[in-house]
Amino acid sequence: MRILGLDPGSRHTGFGVVERRGAKLHAVTSGRISPPKGQSLELRLVHLCRELERVVEQFRPQAAALEALFQGVNPRSLIVLAQARGALLVTLAQRDISCREYSPAEVKSALTGHGRADKQQVQRMVRLILGLGAEPLSVDASDALAVAVCYAQRYRLDSLAP
Amino acid sequence: MRILGLDPGSRHTGFGVVERRGAKLHAVTSGRISPPKGQSLELRLVHLCRELERVVEQFRPQAAALEALFQGVNPRSLIVLAQARGALLVTLAQRDISCREYSPAEVKSALTGHGRADKQQVQRMVRLILGLGAEPLSVDASDALAVAVCYAQRYRLDSLAP
Repeated sequence: MRILGLDPGSRHTGFGVVERRGAKLHAVTSGRISPPKGQSLELRLVHLCRELERVVEQFRPQAAALEALFQGVNPRSLIVLAQARGALLVTLAQRDISCREYSPAEVKSALTGHGRADKQQVQRMVRLILGLGAEPLSVDASDALAVAVCYAQRYRLDSLAP
Repeated sequence: MRILGLDPGSRHTGFGVVERRGAKLHAVTSGRISPPKGQSLELRLVHLCRELERVVEQFRPQAAALEALFQGVNPRSLIVLAQARGALLVTLAQRDISCREYSPAEVKSALTGHGRADKQQVQRMVRLILGLGAEPLSVDASDALAVAVCYAQRYRLDSLAP
């Protein structure tokens, strides 16, 4: 089972693919997509979707997970993020990859055991759970791996439930 | 010159294609896309984009116009609308159809001469400018034609400017 985690941002979109092998989770790939800054919104969205397609074609995830949009951010950022999400969701759905959403608190809770963990704690747990060494890991990539780990753990719990 | 106008909504997305022939504008087609209500967000977005592709393939617009998102609506609606916009924009851009945005006031002003016209006034002017008779026209389709007319008039003014 391979799960793609995505962390859409206004400038960078983090991605990470996680695979379950037996009881353990492994990071298959991670990184970030950064559409050129000067371009129009549409061209940035096209760039984003094209790069997402490449990741999907190369690493073949069966499912995807995203963090739910946080309604507290300002309307302008909300619009930018939601537009990117719409473009990403349709790109995934056109390839039959279903998507689940988790709130930031659910992701933190799945990784650290409590919903109010800070960014550093989450990143430490991402490294630990996925057996990553000291290799460089951008915040975007780490957040994307975190939501993929959250999906993998939730999915496992769901499948164990009676 | 054919222009596609779009009016994305949470349930229905209006569309309308307008063509300039000499000094006059004509409605080539209009209607609305209504993804099935019970489906997941992704599948609704896929439905929306597939239907948009059909309109584009059949009527071959060279450019598209949308109303700018109104930041006063509540965050939940803003997310729904912005996600639909993201999916639509990327679908258009992948087919090399560039998109322009106009504020609601710009659209009203282009059609009626003042930015605070009501829905009925705008719809009356859409019918008048495009030479539509008493044939039925949904609000979504009318709003989509309105933004296409706005583009056509602005474009013409821009091309006349020194």
